[in-house]
Amino acid sequence: MDCLFDPGKLISATLIDDTIRDDQPSVDDVGSKYRLRPLSSKDHARGYLDLLSQLTKTGNVTRLMFTTTFDSMRKDSGTYFIIVIEDTMKKCIVATGSLTIEKKFIHQCGHRGRIEDIVVHYDYRGKRFGKIIVQRLIALSRVLKCYKISLECKDSNVSWYSSMGFVREPGNSNFMQMRLIDDDEEPSP
Amino acid sequence: MDCLFDPGKLISATLIDDTIRDDQPSVDDVGSKYRLRPLSSKDHARGYLDLLSQLTKTGNVTRLMFTTTFDSMRKDSGTYFIIVIEDTMKKCIVATGSLTIEKKFIHQCGHRGRIEDIVVHYDYRGKRFGKIIVQRLIALSRVLKCYKISLECKDSNVSWYSSMGFVREPGNSNFMQMRLIDDDEEPSP
Repeated sequence: MDCLFDPGKLISATLIDDTIRDDQPSVDDVGSKYRLRPLSSKDHARGYLDLLSQLTKTGNVTRLMFTTTFDSMRKDSGTYFIIVIEDTMKKCIVATGSLTIEKKFIHQCGHRGRIEDIVVHYDYRGKRFGKIIVQRLIALSRVLKCYKISLECKDSNVSWYSSMGFVREPGNSNFMQMRLIDDDEEPSP
Repeated sequence: MDCLFDPGKLISATLIDDTIRDDQPSVDDVGSKYRLRPLSSKDHARGYLDLLSQLTKTGNVTRLMFTTTFDSMRKDSGTYFIIVIEDTMKKCIVATGSLTIEKKFIHQCGHRGRIEDIVVHYDYRGKRFGKIIVQRLIALSRVLKCYKISLECKDSNVSWYSSMGFVREPGNSNFMQMRLIDDDEEPSP
């Protein structure tokens, strides 16, 4: 499979993910109904963009646009780690999340991770897929030796992320933004 | 000069930076006392790391570590935009800030910008250098066609960033983090 990043990194992350429990769907096995894996260059045809449009505005992303961005992300080696859960029977992507690595000079030229774009398909909620995605990205950030990972979220999601170990540090937890193109936060129809 | 990114982008940003006023130091002229420019591969010797250590933990970053990270950032074309203000008489870096571009599939494969690591040297405060750096990074993010830029900050900095147009969106302004290596936020001695 044509992967966004070395699947070996995800295998290492799976090995150290101590949140995997017997009552969770077996998402990593190739033969299972659901499979967790890196984003593939073929996922445009598997509804990856439709899934993202349940989170925020995606617009019309053609196959060429998808491939160009995918190739560009892959070229930036060690930066983009997008994982997906595929329904292998229906051959469609039902959950996704991304870990983006920022190279720094601080922290002895360390790496900082950012968790972004977590979304589970409407029809597949209640299966703990969101938590599986985030926990695996946390494990992946350990494999990639990040000194810190972070995310921004709505008030309604604070307790959910807290349950996985994220904290709002007192006096240091403000997320500020400036929208330069006014088309954000309106999910596509 | 051996720059982290195409100086032409910064020249374009300077042209559209409508916050430049006559009472500000002329930081962009090559012949002036202070010069604003992209980070250079020679800035390790000009105190760039010492400056960063006034912001957070940097540790001992050797020239080789600096060069390796610099080259790696430059290779990820279109991602890392670190700017500095140099005191051209003393040949030392007195202020810096970074804009990091994250490639996305959402927003029609758009670009999102993040402003990070803003610091002005203790001896050079009160000259509006911090504001000049942030305003120029905002202008740069427009040149780079970001649909959104964002940052995380302490409570004490919210009003400062607000004055430049950043907002904490109601219900959507939580910054959460998880420290994986416990050495953060302790400025070097």
